[in-house]
Amino acid sequence: MAIPIVLLGCGTVGRALALEALALGDRLRFLAVLDSSGGVVDPSGIPVGRLREILALKEKGEGLGAAGLAWEEALAAVRALLREGRGVVVDATASEGTVGFLLEALEQGWGVVFANKRPLVGPWEDYRRLTSSGRLRYEATVGAGLPVIAVLNSLLATGDEVYRIRGILSGTLGFLLHRVEEGIPFSQAVREAMARGYTEPHPAEDLSGKDVARKALILARTLGLPLELQEVAVEPLCPPEMGELPVEEFLEELLPLDVKMQRRLEQARKRGSALRYLAEVSPAGCRVGLMEVEWESPLARARGPENVVVLETRRFRKHPLVISGPGAGSASTAAGLLADIVRLGGSSRR
Amino acid sequence: MAIPIVLLGCGTVGRALALEALALGDRLRFLAVLDSSGGVVDPSGIPVGRLREILALKEKGEGLGAAGLAWEEALAAVRALLREGRGVVVDATASEGTVGFLLEALEQGWGVVFANKRPLVGPWEDYRRLTSSGRLRYEATVGAGLPVIAVLNSLLATGDEVYRIRGILSGTLGFLLHRVEEGIPFSQAVREAMARGYTEPHPAEDLSGKDVARKALILARTLGLPLELQEVAVEPLCPPEMGELPVEEFLEELLPLDVKMQRRLEQARKRGSALRYLAEVSPAGCRVGLMEVEWESPLARARGPENVVVLETRRFRKHPLVISGPGAGSASTAAGLLADIVRLGGSSRR
Repeated sequence: MAIPIVLLGCGTVGRALALEALALGDRLRFLAVLDSSGGVVDPSGIPVGRLREILALKEKGEGLGAAGLAWEEALAAVRALLREGRGVVVDATASEGTVGFLLEALEQGWGVVFANKRPLVGPWEDYRRLTSSGRLRYEATVGAGLPVIAVLNSLLATGDEVYRIRGILSGTLGFLLHRVEEGIPFSQAVREAMARGYTEPHPAEDLSGKDVARKALILARTLGLPLELQEVAVEPLCPPEMGELPVEEFLEELLPLDVKMQRRLEQARKRGSALRYLAEVSPAGCRVGLMEVEWESPLARARGPENVVVLETRRFRKHPLVISGPGAGSASTAAGLLADIVRLGGSSRR
Repeated sequence: MAIPIVLLGCGTVGRALALEALALGDRLRFLAVLDSSGGVVDPSGIPVGRLREILALKEKGEGLGAAGLAWEEALAAVRALLREGRGVVVDATASEGTVGFLLEALEQGWGVVFANKRPLVGPWEDYRRLTSSGRLRYEATVGAGLPVIAVLNSLLATGDEVYRIRGILSGTLGFLLHRVEEGIPFSQAVREAMARGYTEPHPAEDLSGKDVARKALILARTLGLPLELQEVAVEPLCPPEMGELPVEEFLEELLPLDVKMQRRLEQARKRGSALRYLAEVSPAGCRVGLMEVEWESPLARARGPENVVVLETRRFRKHPLVISGPGAGSASTAAGLLADIVRLGGSSRR
């Protein structure tokens, strides 16, 4: 039996999910695909050929409103779907505005799967309302397709106690720090990361640490800690106001930071440590920034753009549980979404 | 609602599970605990005080036949339980003889959870019959509490393709190889591992590679490969006939292997590689033995007694998915059992 899907957002992640689903055959059935301009809705399932057309349109940068229903009509059609059946809504947007709609879907008995972090890092009360149904999953929001949330949930469900989570949750910043360690000036390493396509269009977005803070908050909330985003202590890698500068100017302004970063690294080395940009989550709180780690730690051994998550728990104390691998990219994110969809789809068929 | 449990085997792993369950409160309800001499059966749940008595008895090395029912009676009482309700049978024995009973339990609608590898590495037909119900779990058999099987199943369930699994699945052999790398003669490293309690009572058991071969076969069968144990190519670390020698004599006889091992290591180094005892599983087959790995690989970076599993799949290709941590020990194994029990218990309550 195919799992009915309503897909919100059809950017790189949404498209990667649709492509994976097509490769899977008839395991998923897309009833609706929406973007910010409108969408295509078909209660009996969008035929494969039509779905491919939609993906091709989006690839070319076109909106779905022109190809299908305009926004208001599409939303009304999807609301009718919610009332008529059961399935899974996938939030692959980058919007903060989906919470209300997703709560409606949960109330109607649908499952909800997130690639979008923003609804999960709003007020704690929203998070609590979203998760209280037990039909919400968000594996892809931390470490993309790496099974970080699944493993954490399994530990919690079996009565383990989490003492501390430390993670390299930005492959981009992991790459930067490793290059600086190899002797490349910080500003040059940023240019290199840009050239490889590792950064956001404006690299200040990565250097702000905000996205890592969102992931740290999601981990903390998964542990049951009722924290707000502003309670996550964030050390940005450049002054926040620099984000206002045009990219080229921004890169110029990074030069004075080269010496500062070099000095931090040398201090760490003198203490026999490596310098990493980490998220640290424990019952005591949540912080994100440059931290020193023992050379023997799996966190120090990280080189490239991978993510590394180290879980220290009552059961995994002397030797922690470590998960590492590609923590970004649309294929890996789609893998995380699919895992959640299959888990929810399995239980919604009860 | 508590999950009803029938526990077969009450050695270190069975006891660790019972202790974890006691710490969890009333999540699990033990209806029966059996060992090879007999058992204690109580259809309404063994009271906590009585369960603690049983654990204390076993700690002292006593059999349950004297404290409760003799073997035949205990088995008859458990069979009655199987007919009357639903729950989870946990095989924490080291016996090959449990298959028949476990098939009965599955037929009656019970779930089955394994710490015991042996029933899973018998004839493929047995494996197929055991797993066909969909109510059998065996996370603890590979990597103890590390979520190796869960992650693999999630990848397979979402249509990923596994190209290759490579793993350090024996913490003991991992430790040995790392010590040899540090310049300690092989025979001395074996004595050291014994002194730390890392080996089986007779270390020939570890050096035979047989236990790693069982784990490799379980991974291969999880991928759907219908292999038999004798089809796993195994390179033992000492001639098999040496296992017949008394331990002290065995350790003496290891001395001539020191030079051989040193030479293997140097050859690997000349090629810029590390030498590890690995299990390698791919659609092409299954082998276990000394293998060279790139220095940059997470397999080369393993030091201590941890396990490391590297999954190369269609989605995790350039950067594989890596899970590492303690892959042995009764606490970690109990964690694996609990995760399986909770998963099965959740679905059996449907």
